[in-house]
Amino acid sequence: MALATRDRLRRDARDIFRAALDAVDPFRVVKRSLAVGRAAVVVGGHRFPVARRGRVLAIAIGKAAAPMLAAAEEILGDRLDAGLCVTKRGHALPLGRSRVMEAGHPVPDEAGLAAAGEVERLLRGATRDDLVLVLLSGGGSALLPAPVPGITLTEKQAATSLLLASGADIGEMNCVRKHLSRLKGGGLARAAAPARVATIVLSDVVGDPLDVIASGPTVPDPSSFGDALEVLRRRGLVDRVPGTVRLRLLAGARGELPDTPKPGDPLFRRCRALLGATNRLALDAAARRACALGYRPLVLTTTLTGEAREIGGMLAALAREVRSSERPVAPPCCLLSGGEPTVTLRGNGKGGRNQELALAAAFGLEKLPGVALLAAGTDGTDGPTDAAGAICDGDTLARARADGIDPARHLENNDAYPLLAATGDLLITGPTRTNVMDLHAVLVAGVPRRTRRTVRFRRIRRPGRAG
Amino acid sequence: MALATRDRLRRDARDIFRAALDAVDPFRVVKRSLAVGRAAVVVGGHRFPVARRGRVLAIAIGKAAAPMLAAAEEILGDRLDAGLCVTKRGHALPLGRSRVMEAGHPVPDEAGLAAAGEVERLLRGATRDDLVLVLLSGGGSALLPAPVPGITLTEKQAATSLLLASGADIGEMNCVRKHLSRLKGGGLARAAAPARVATIVLSDVVGDPLDVIASGPTVPDPSSFGDALEVLRRRGLVDRVPGTVRLRLLAGARGELPDTPKPGDPLFRRCRALLGATNRLALDAAARRACALGYRPLVLTTTLTGEAREIGGMLAALAREVRSSERPVAPPCCLLSGGEPTVTLRGNGKGGRNQELALAAAFGLEKLPGVALLAAGTDGTDGPTDAAGAICDGDTLARARADGIDPARHLENNDAYPLLAATGDLLITGPTRTNVMDLHAVLVAGVPRRTRRTVRFRRIRRPGRAG
Repeated sequence: MALATRDRLRRDARDIFRAALDAVDPFRVVKRSLAVGRAAVVVGGHRFPVARRGRVLAIAIGKAAAPMLAAAEEILGDRLDAGLCVTKRGHALPLGRSRVMEAGHPVPDEAGLAAAGEVERLLRGATRDDLVLVLLSGGGSALLPAPVPGITLTEKQAATSLLLASGADIGEMNCVRKHLSRLKGGGLARAAAPARVATIVLSDVVGDPLDVIASGPTVPDPSSFGDALEVLRRRGLVDRVPGTVRLRLLAGARGELPDTPKPGDPLFRRCRALLGATNRLALDAAARRACALGYRPLVLTTTLTGEAREIGGMLAALAREVRSSERPVAPPCCLLSGGEPTVTLRGNGKGGRNQELALAAAFGLEKLPGVALLAAGTDGTDGPTDAAGAICDGDTLARARADGIDPARHLENNDAYPLLAATGDLLITGPTRTNVMDLHAVLVAGVPRRTRRTVRFRRIRRPGRAG
Repeated sequence: MALATRDRLRRDARDIFRAALDAVDPFRVVKRSLAVGRAAVVVGGHRFPVARRGRVLAIAIGKAAAPMLAAAEEILGDRLDAGLCVTKRGHALPLGRSRVMEAGHPVPDEAGLAAAGEVERLLRGATRDDLVLVLLSGGGSALLPAPVPGITLTEKQAATSLLLASGADIGEMNCVRKHLSRLKGGGLARAAAPARVATIVLSDVVGDPLDVIASGPTVPDPSSFGDALEVLRRRGLVDRVPGTVRLRLLAGARGELPDTPKPGDPLFRRCRALLGATNRLALDAAARRACALGYRPLVLTTTLTGEAREIGGMLAALAREVRSSERPVAPPCCLLSGGEPTVTLRGNGKGGRNQELALAAAFGLEKLPGVALLAAGTDGTDGPTDAAGAICDGDTLARARADGIDPARHLENNDAYPLLAATGDLLITGPTRTNVMDLHAVLVAGVPRRTRRTVRFRRIRRPGRAG
């Protein structure tokens, strides 16, 4: 591959990723979604009337809470009566009139308990004339622990840990947690009633389910106490969770406790939620930027899950097909996908799911000219490393081997980072303050070459000259 | 999903698969590729002069040998001087003037040894005026064992078994085997020299590498004795393979034995090979048929490898994206891919890679309306079952559960067959006598529905009516 082509592809890949990040920047997302009208606040095109004596309260929860609330302060100005920002330690920004509280993540702590209490204090006394603006982003679930009376944070945590260890998925975890919490699963909306509630969501969950992101504090909970108990039964945990947890779920399943608010609850007549930023929005922006750079964009999917190395192999197979048969699109092109693959740990190396995906893809791209593959987390962090991901191409493995590195061993040992650091293939952005999961871009340059047809005669050797 | 839509999608999926099979039917492939001209035989558009006193010899090797040679007999008629068909037991057809020999597959046997001897006998005395037409298909490697003098079939088999058990890939296996064989790795071309050799290949290997399909008997071998020895070293087998094998490779690596013919060898000036049928050709035909049925076709890739269940998940993610954002193409559409995924055995159930892929995809398609996914082997056989594969849709899991079947348990236990048999999702074609690996088709109907935009307001509940 000509050096010029290789450098251009890598620069374009970074450029496309940057455009995707810009589109889901939390500050811009809120500025774009929010406006103040006459006696109303407009959220995502929907008008929320606010009476003259009504108040506007803003509550931002999650890792992107600070920039989201900063944008809301800027738009709402004096119309904002009170604001509260609950974010991860180290993620705070100086805000105007809003209070900022930092709490533990991913393990909830006492500071989170205090923040949850502060949210409830702020909402106490909210009236029909008020509007509560809720700004949600990833991490909200851990940052705002609010166990129901009689259950301690430690007991709730014990139940969560047992579920995790038993192999429960996110849906099962959330089902149980919502039934142990005052704010999750529509609890915040209930606490805010009878005020109107407008929620702007930055989605970090595949498929953007509003009842899962930050445990859905302002939307209906489709799951019941009975479902939560069934999860414990299925996972063989009924007799292993703390007694208070078991007793609550049993009492709830017998109908002795009020359940979380369900779809159809009149409570939600005055609540709306807007998906302000999603993986799809990031991919849309990436596609536009790719188009501007001269690539035909093709968005494959925004809901990728599964083993990272397998997805890397599949994306490489797509790149090979573009090269050999100009399908699914003719080069120059940019194939885009998004989602949240996972890594099944086999070794004890250093890396992340995006680095592993890119390294696995490098095996399929080996010696393929004019192709680059970027895989990166939109939060700027990939596993326990300082990289967001990596950009690999047809020379990656050759560069590694030239440095005496065995690529197969590094892939086997989940040890992509040292290899990619040596080959110069790491993508480092620093924290981006946003998170809409991962983005993968496969760029194929329009290298002029003989088009191969499906049935063709392959000449084994040119006749007429001696070997 | 309306029953009518579901039935139509499944019927169309079968129809598309049938069109793909027709395009790679071995009889038709040879009829299409072969013609007799004035003092010449034309193969794939290339003219092979045959002098008046020259002979035309046809040798067909592989599971599709019989129909390929039958077509050659029909086209060549009296111009064919002698023919030999070496095929798997049970795969023979009555032929005209050609001799038919059946041999063991996948384990080579004495009958295969005899067939290899017969091939050499036929080629003995071939002159510059002769044309040897070689018709290759999958299985050719096992059907024609020809160990070099001094090494027995048992010893060659022992080396192969050790390599397999050590985790060697197909490239490593072939590298060693070619250096223990008289006919593999260009050996057949050498035996036919100085005659012209025209090869028509039905490819059952990902990427269609001519030196790998049927172990490349008529094309150059890029690997050397040294490479073969290096494979044994890497796999720790140098001291474990039979002594005769070790001695031969050591002697060859020291340059004491003639190596397989290499690229650039003058031998190949008179040899040409044609890819008569490939996975790509099958997918092209499937795309044309899908188009005729009203679906927008999109070929993703023809070189899929990797874990079948992961690929199923990825194809389901693509289907979901079509449904939710009309990308990568707007419905009605048909996404096509091909290749040869693998299954890592975890359980002891009954199934095949296509059935497992389809069942895994069913989890991602659950409750999705207007989508069907077909996964099937073009040889009509998927694992040790009577099915070619399966067609799953959004109702598959519900149908299984209604029968009291736990889909997750069946997937975990590699036990797709009984579930798919119960839900009526098996695709049974019987043996097709061809093999260009697997085909996957995702059909998405053009169900009219509200288009969802990336940033939109999700209404939680219609206002104005009590819940």
